[in-house]
Amino acid sequence: MKALRFYAAKDLRIEEIDDIPQPGPGQVAIKNKYVGICGTDLHEYVAGPIFVPVEPHPFTKAQAPQVLGHEFSGEVTAVGEGVTHVKPGDRVSVQPLVMPRSGDYFADRGLFHLSEDLALVGLSWMSGGMAEAAIVNDYNAVKIPDNMSWEEGALVEPTAVAVYACERGEVTAGDSVLVTGAGPIGMLAMLSAKAYGATKIFLSDVNETRLKMAKEILPEVITFNPMKDDVVAEIRARTEGGVGCDKVIEASGNEAALNTGLQAVRKQGTIVQVGLHTKDSKLHWHDVTFKDVDVRGAWAYPTSYWPKVIDLIASGAIPAEKVVTRKIVLDEAVTEGFDALLDASGEHVKILIDVSK
Amino acid sequence: MKALRFYAAKDLRIEEIDDIPQPGPGQVAIKNKYVGICGTDLHEYVAGPIFVPVEPHPFTKAQAPQVLGHEFSGEVTAVGEGVTHVKPGDRVSVQPLVMPRSGDYFADRGLFHLSEDLALVGLSWMSGGMAEAAIVNDYNAVKIPDNMSWEEGALVEPTAVAVYACERGEVTAGDSVLVTGAGPIGMLAMLSAKAYGATKIFLSDVNETRLKMAKEILPEVITFNPMKDDVVAEIRARTEGGVGCDKVIEASGNEAALNTGLQAVRKQGTIVQVGLHTKDSKLHWHDVTFKDVDVRGAWAYPTSYWPKVIDLIASGAIPAEKVVTRKIVLDEAVTEGFDALLDASGEHVKILIDVSK
Repeated sequence: MKALRFYAAKDLRIEEIDDIPQPGPGQVAIKNKYVGICGTDLHEYVAGPIFVPVEPHPFTKAQAPQVLGHEFSGEVTAVGEGVTHVKPGDRVSVQPLVMPRSGDYFADRGLFHLSEDLALVGLSWMSGGMAEAAIVNDYNAVKIPDNMSWEEGALVEPTAVAVYACERGEVTAGDSVLVTGAGPIGMLAMLSAKAYGATKIFLSDVNETRLKMAKEILPEVITFNPMKDDVVAEIRARTEGGVGCDKVIEASGNEAALNTGLQAVRKQGTIVQVGLHTKDSKLHWHDVTFKDVDVRGAWAYPTSYWPKVIDLIASGAIPAEKVVTRKIVLDEAVTEGFDALLDASGEHVKILIDVSK
Repeated sequence: MKALRFYAAKDLRIEEIDDIPQPGPGQVAIKNKYVGICGTDLHEYVAGPIFVPVEPHPFTKAQAPQVLGHEFSGEVTAVGEGVTHVKPGDRVSVQPLVMPRSGDYFADRGLFHLSEDLALVGLSWMSGGMAEAAIVNDYNAVKIPDNMSWEEGALVEPTAVAVYACERGEVTAGDSVLVTGAGPIGMLAMLSAKAYGATKIFLSDVNETRLKMAKEILPEVITFNPMKDDVVAEIRARTEGGVGCDKVIEASGNEAALNTGLQAVRKQGTIVQVGLHTKDSKLHWHDVTFKDVDVRGAWAYPTSYWPKVIDLIASGAIPAEKVVTRKIVLDEAVTEGFDALLDASGEHVKILIDVSK
């Protein structure tokens, strides 16, 4: 079958690989439909291997060359012994986290995303979404309702990240929320904040194209460009008592954006750090104490969120598909997918690959 | 009467000033007993004015020269019109925060410590504890029980800071807690963590004298010196699953200590930032996201905490007096108090001044 595999930084290959085997006990075979390209995939492409194991993964034994793709939907084609919750023909969204062995402190608490043994389908597992088919564990295949499109099924994963960020920030009705960074997670965080009841949503980014797109996705959003606007003053002017916004969702991974967020948030407000800072950041840390704020990391998502996120999308509460800027086929994945997302114009937010064509 | 007043950095004067006037409506006159020297007072002495207003304070109209002292106890000598909750002869601990005008966003929510108009007795108010007597507002004078010493009454304020840090960290029974920084707040945080039920308490500081004192104050504390010990490895070795400690209370205001705390805390643990970072700090911020942690600022205390903190000390749950390393009289305050605390040996933690002598 055809697949896109990661060999090394800047070395992604679209090639023929062995067909998937029959699913073993507790496993499910999937004919893949749509798969999204994630920021994590881009990091692997530019600077990897980061998550892709070069030695066999301690738990899953996976290693490069690795089929990429952990945001995907597909149709169940076969199930292994003991699998009862899905059957051939079922439509599923893949929850990509592979549960580690019991005995792990976090796994024993249901916090699989925090395990030291963390493995993901499409990063450190025998299969991935960027291929015609995949083998996953039974719990990775989560049914989606009939009214959910294959495209939406591929968007559950990044939406789960944005939803978890809102949960960590306890975003609630009437909140004023600043999202910093208008990438796919920032855009989905903006839509999720709306779903959680935020009544004032601000978005900052240095890229005007992205800000324009954001207004198309959510017309009520108030956008700022920190290269031109005094973001802190603008937000203070628009919040009760001039105290700043209730919550900040930092989705850029950028030091300056975080410092702006620390200034823009009100005292006893909350900043959620969902964008990964890949370098050390110099912060005006005085204000964390002085402003009595909470700063909360948001890493991936608890796997238990999957049905809820599916419902948030399927019900229309989070119109995740609006962040898709292009759909391509697997043969175009590197040039029209990975390279297009790395283009400095920022023209593309989320690119989906139709792997069934 | 005799008083210690702040004029400018390195310019504290012990001098005769006017006696306090008769208390106005809603005011209370106090004959001061014991007053503590706080880190904030030291900051004013070394690098002030910081909190002391050079122009009249917008609300209280106070300005330098300012009587210092916001950690104090005393006896009520007279009350103004309308004051009913205390009477002459009552023993009180002073809650130093002056409530700002209503109409203030935070004051309207009972969060007086977060008001932009924040003023404190002994920093930006007509009186302070480092004088023979003081005038305060009725709500500043909080009765203490008969079994509480004058010294303990002067320790309610710094203990309130430590208690609030535990509350922000939701320190609870069975927690493992690392306190970074063995100054007065760190020592009181260590004792408070014990009162909140922590069963493993770690303390790190570069000063061996302080670590030795900490063991005398709380024999069960496990101390580390980051100049000699691998604090992170030591803590991991002593926590369930080797995952790190549940909570960190960062009481040093030091960048390296905070980065150590970020490494030492377990995933989904909580770091409380109570020590004020006076310079920007360079942090390995990646881990805030990756470890899904909470970082929570703890600024002063809600004024509503006063009766609870009095009870925690009076009941013996927090033996605050153990952090007192010296008692002096007002005439000695600069040389034997302020200068002694600035001595690099770290020999002194909390110095109390008996202003009745």
